[in-house]
This record gives sequence, C-alpha cells and structure tokens, in this order.
Amino acid sequence: MDYNAKLDEALKRLHDEGRYRTFIDIEREKGNYPHATWRRPDGSEQPITVWCGNDYLGMGQHPVVLDAMHEALDATGAGSGGTRNISGTTVYHKRLEAEIADLHGKESALLFTSAYIANDATLSTLPKLFPGLIIYSDELNHASMIEGVRRNGGAKRIFRHNDVEHLRELLAADDPAAPKLIAFESVYSMDGDFGPIEAICDLADEFGALTYIDEVHAVGMYGPRGGGVTERDRLAHRIDIINGTLAKAYGVMGGYIAASFKLCDAIRSYAPGFIFTTSLPPTVAAGAAASVRHLKTDQARRDLHQQQAKTLKLRLKGLGLPIIDHGSHIVPVIVGDPVHTKKLSDMLLEGYGIYVQPINFPTVPRGTERLRFTPSPVHGPEEMDKLIRAMDQLWSHCALNRAELAG
Amino acid sequence: MDYNAKLDEALKRLHDEGRYRTFIDIEREKGNYPHATWRRPDGSEQPITVWCGNDYLGMGQHPVVLDAMHEALDATGAGSGGTRNISGTTVYHKRLEAEIADLHGKESALLFTSAYIANDATLSTLPKLFPGLIIYSDELNHASMIEGVRRNGGAKRIFRHNDVEHLRELLAADDPAAPKLIAFESVYSMDGDFGPIEAICDLADEFGALTYIDEVHAVGMYGPRGGGVTERDRLAHRIDIINGTLAKAYGVMGGYIAASFKLCDAIRSYAPGFIFTTSLPPTVAAGAAASVRHLKTDQARRDLHQQQAKTLKLRLKGLGLPIIDHGSHIVPVIVGDPVHTKKLSDMLLEGYGIYVQPINFPTVPRGTERLRFTPSPVHGPEEMDKLIRAMDQLWSHCALNRAELAG
Repeated sequence: MDYNAKLDEALKRLHDEGRYRTFIDIEREKGNYPHATWRRPDGSEQPITVWCGNDYLGMGQHPVVLDAMHEALDATGAGSGGTRNISGTTVYHKRLEAEIADLHGKESALLFTSAYIANDATLSTLPKLFPGLIIYSDELNHASMIEGVRRNGGAKRIFRHNDVEHLRELLAADDPAAPKLIAFESVYSMDGDFGPIEAICDLADEFGALTYIDEVHAVGMYGPRGGGVTERDRLAHRIDIINGTLAKAYGVMGGYIAASFKLCDAIRSYAPGFIFTTSLPPTVAAGAAASVRHLKTDQARRDLHQQQAKTLKLRLKGLGLPIIDHGSHIVPVIVGDPVHTKKLSDMLLEGYGIYVQPINFPTVPRGTERLRFTPSPVHGPEEMDKLIRAMDQLWSHCALNRAELAG
Repeated sequence: MDYNAKLDEALKRLHDEGRYRTFIDIEREKGNYPHATWRRPDGSEQPITVWCGNDYLGMGQHPVVLDAMHEALDATGAGSGGTRNISGTTVYHKRLEAEIADLHGKESALLFTSAYIANDATLSTLPKLFPGLIIYSDELNHASMIEGVRRNGGAKRIFRHNDVEHLRELLAADDPAAPKLIAFESVYSMDGDFGPIEAICDLADEFGALTYIDEVHAVGMYGPRGGGVTERDRLAHRIDIINGTLAKAYGVMGGYIAASFKLCDAIRSYAPGFIFTTSLPPTVAAGAAASVRHLKTDQARRDLHQQQAKTLKLRLKGLGLPIIDHGSHIVPVIVGDPVHTKKLSDMLLEGYGIYVQPINFPTVPRGTERLRFTPSPVHGPEEMDKLIRAMDQLWSHCALNRAELAG
C-alpha cells in the first residue's frame, strides 16, 4: 500500500480543480484593524487591509474585551485545566452562560469550544434524547450542522433552500407521532440571505416539531440587544434551540446553544463533544462575556455596520459588478470559477494590498465561486474608495462580465 | 409529542444510576494553584485544593505563558476573526505549528481548537484519503477517537485493550492489500497505563499499516523535551500521526496532529472540522507556543512531577487503598460504585476542602467508578499530608475495602 501516492492523488485533485487553499499569513495590529501585515512565504512583509474577516464589528480590538481578558489572565491564569465536569468549570464560564441565556431570553445556555462543535454535538445528540427523531435540514445549512445531522445515522430530510412549501410536504409525509426537528439558519453566510423564520415556526407549530436555528452570522449584529434576527423579529420565544458564536461579531472564540434548562441539562449530560473536551480558557470566557454585555447596548455600532454594508453594495452595484444583495451585512461578488477567483484575490492582495480570500467549493457550490467582502464599522471611507477603485480596474483588466450574475 | 417528558426520562436515567453530573464552580487564583475558591450554588465560598486538574505541570500559571498571552493581546487583539483559510491564519499559528512539528520531529503540524476535534476530524477524514481504509482501534481509546472512527461508517476493528496478539489476529484476517491504520494511546488517562508502542509499530511494519497515537496525557511530561512517550522511547519516527493537546501539561488550550507535510496538507484540505471553524485566538496560540518551548528544556519540572506521583501512590498504598499503579503520573483510586464515588467526593470537598471529581460511566466502565488524583509539581508536602489524612479517615468512616481492587 503506497500511502504517499494516495495523498498525492488527493492533493492533485485540489490543484487540478484550482481549489487548493493557500493560507495567507497575517498579523493584525491591535487598534489598527482592518489594517494588518501580510507575511509572504519568503518572509517579506506588506501592509494590507483585511476585507474578509468575520470580526464583523471590530470587537476583537475593543478595550472592554481586552481589559476583561487581561484581568482574567492576571487573576486566574491561562487555561481552565479540565473538562467542564473535571475542574474546568469556573465563575467565568457561569457568568458567560448567564449573559448568553439573558441575550436570547432562554432559561439556559451551554458553552462549547466553537459553534462548529456546538452544532455537531447538539444535533448528533438530540436523536439519543428523542428516539426516532426526524431532522429536517435546509440544504444550505453549514457544514457543522450537516456533520451533526449525519453523524449518528438518524432519520433526516433535506429541504430545498428556504423552500417552506417543500418543508411542508416533507413534514406532512412523515408519521405525525414521530418526534421532529427543523434545523436552519437565520443568515446564510455565503449568500447573506435570511431564513424564513416565522414561516418555519408556523410549520413547526402545525406539525409539532422542535426548531433549531443557527444565528452564528447574526448574533451581536441584529436585534436591539444583539440577540440576532430572532430578536429583531421577536421570534426567539418560538425557537427551541438557538446556536451562536463568540468568534465573529463578538470578536473572541467559542460557541454555544441557548435553550430551556432541561434541554441544556440533557445535552450537557449526553453529548461527547461537550463532555470530553477541555473547557474554554477563563480569559476567553471573560472577553466573550464582556463583548456580549457591551453589544447589548451599543446600537450605534450595529447601525454603522449596516450602513457600511449598504454603502459598499451600492458602490459595487454602481460599477455594475455581479453582487448578491439580500439586505444583510455580507457582500458576495460572484466570479463563478475557482481559478479566476483565486487570480483576482491574488491580484487584489499583491497589487492593491486588499485581502479578500477566494471562496471555493466545498464552502460554496461549484460554479458560484466568489469574493466575499465583510465591511465593518472599522473600515474607513478611504479604505472603501481604494477597494472600489481596485475592483473597477480589475474587472476591466480581466474583461469580466458586469452585473450578469447579480442577485 | 411531549418533548419535555422525553428529556425528563433521559435525565432521570442519570439520577437513577447516581451518575448525574454536578459541575463544581471554582475560581483559581493565579500563582496560588492548586489552591482555588469553590463557589457553592448558594453563592458562599470555601477555599479548596484542586486534586483533579489536568494542568499537570502548573504551566497554566507560569509567567512565560502569561507574558506571551498578555503580549499577544496587546499586539494583536482578542480573536483571530476567521477560519484558518479566511483571514484566521496568523504568525502566532505558524510559530506554534513549527514549535510542535519540531517537538515531535515531524515535517508538519496542524492546529485544531481541541485535541478532541483533532482526533475526531483526522480519524474521520483519513478514510476519504485512503479509500477502503480499515481502522484498528484499542477498545479503551478516548471518546474523541471513537467518534472519529465511527463517524463516516468506515471499516473498523476493535482490539482488546493493549492486546497485541488480538491486534495481530485482526490484522492477519484482513486483505493484505487494504490500507490500514492502528489507532491507540500512549497513556490511557483513566487507568494511567501505557500503550505497547514498540510492539504496535512492529505489527504496523509487518502488515503495512499506518500508526496513529494519542499522546494527550503525555506531551510535555515524558521525553527529554516533552515530546511524549514516543520521544522517551525513541519511537516517534515510527509513528505516522501524533495527536496531542495544548490544554493539559501545556496549560492553555487547543489540540493538534503532527505528521508528514503531505498528510497535514491533506487533512488541512479535506477535514470539515478543521476547515469550517474559527482558528484559535492568537493569544492562545502565543501562550501555547511559549509553554511548548519552555518545556523543551525544563526537565526539573518533569522530574518533580513524576516524584510527586510516586510519593502519592506510595502513601496511598501505605494506607492499603485500592489504587491502580502503572508507573505513570495518574493516580486512580477505585471505588466501584457511582453513588459511593460521588458521596466520597462530596465529603472530601465539603469536609476537607479537597476537590477531586467523581469519575463515572461513560468516562470509565461501569463498576470501575473512581476518584482520580493528579498530583503536580505545585502540590506542596502540606497539601499531600492533608489529602492522605482525609482519605484515611474517610475510608475508615465509610468502612470501605482497602487494597481489594488494587492493580
């Protein structure tokens, strides 16, 4: 058995399709984000502006977050030293869970090391709690939800993206007495479109299903206290399990679910992905709690974020560029080919100091490869001018279509 | 469908078996570990000594680690702001991966948010790279390895714990041309026994299998530079993939694999659990790198750690307590019943300020419930005296057997 030859084959497939990923090595400077330094493989450096980060609101450099992290480091040290059950539960974890439960108006919250593992662990554990559970999953759900739904081989139905009629057909076709759960997202991160939350909740009521929503790309940014789209639309009470992250708008790390006390208690007790892993460092929990707390009142930052996204979309549309616009903060420009997308990304980085990673399969479907911009309150007018000029020049230079694929 | 009733049932099963877990809420004080403060549910506080942490060497409060974390926070901010591919690769991640690759004498290393996800993601991705792969897995492998082996429904064979003859039988029974991987641990965390690394490597050579070792409870603590038991026994070069953690002896957070450049490149490219999750905060990566670097030379700390474990085992044996002793740093005292174990743990905590969490199923097999002590270089002689006295009194008070189950 020639294992190396097999690895060569697997890697060659990626190169052949033009979707071999090269990580860009960057160093942020606190207080200067989105400005950062790109370190090339040869060790030379170039100043860049990050246009594809998920620190959507710039909270990763907010003094309230950093002060909390420094304080916790000084008070308690580096790691937690254990799983939640074996010496790894601290007052910092409890405070953060209380902050999150309050954010979503739920009885309880449960921390995980990432929203990926929160999705995976929770969705794969629910069939143990509700034997015979059927999970109805939006076809564009995040990889972590797909992994969780698949993991234990439970019953699943995939409904067409945001297609409530299709979901209804699938629900109606199953045994009315079977336990059911509908899993979907509030903001789909690659197109930036919204899930039909109310219509799905109505169906859940009609068919006696539980509801599970991934608000990873919405928490902190939507709703009067940052509780996500479910808070904005006053629907949080109709959702049984809300999944969120502390690593994007909140600028730190970690993920969670918020739900009833009983449900969190059961997941806490039965999910291997929760039980058998070291808890978050207290300093991370402290920073995240400070960020969640801060964004409960900083509506100005949310407003500016939305304004920045609107402006960028308007200006890209003005150039006739094929952007997708569903009214969220995410600005995808469709290129439609992995090699072209990578080339454009390289030209932006090397020629203009603009860093936007190419997004290829499996993150997005083949043929919809794109550049995905994430404007934030910390991107100034000058940075946006530079970006617009660069995109205009590149689109002309490469003789790319304008507006053809716009949504 | 009454979902709450189902949750009640699931939780009742745990209560009935006496294995419902109550998290103990503690607050460490930097510089004073293993001393900490226990916050009771009613809000009152009691000073305690932690005897069950996995910060085995006390590195979670080492100045070299904390300074590196403070510095990175000041230089770069809180979170990384993205997945490794999308703006979340920093110089801190690269430095840490280089430090780890060097530690294990491998070409490459790949960071994950935990060793749990490193195991799960890697073991579930290998069958994609080597179609038809058969994984031979020790029956006492950690939950994260079990989850990874199970996830994609690939072929698996479970061999009896540390039973090289059984493993040989299983290997011999399969198609010689099939790709194979043997997955095992160097130190099994609940009994503290060692895997037969050399014998397994010999079998791997004989049958053309890859080798995968979990060194989570060994890195930092064994080997002249902390490279684990594979370094101590000069066998690292015979292992294809070494899995380790930054959250135990290194005192911070995160997990990794170390392997050939090609293998890391392929896992990096194909594992959803690596691709779709925010990378570690730079401050965590900086602290972990400082810890790995420091322990490459601090042999005195390793020696003291082993001495502490030897002393504790000797003294517990002197009392005739049923401890398991395989010569590692882990000191399990078998109780053999979940309710008694919980009761003993509660009495130690409340009556003596000694915190050692009861270990129940599914962490250990039913009937082997235990108290698991983790002495460290920062536990002083006075703390050990107190522990010995408390155990002696409790064993007499509860009329528990002495030495009956000793290994």
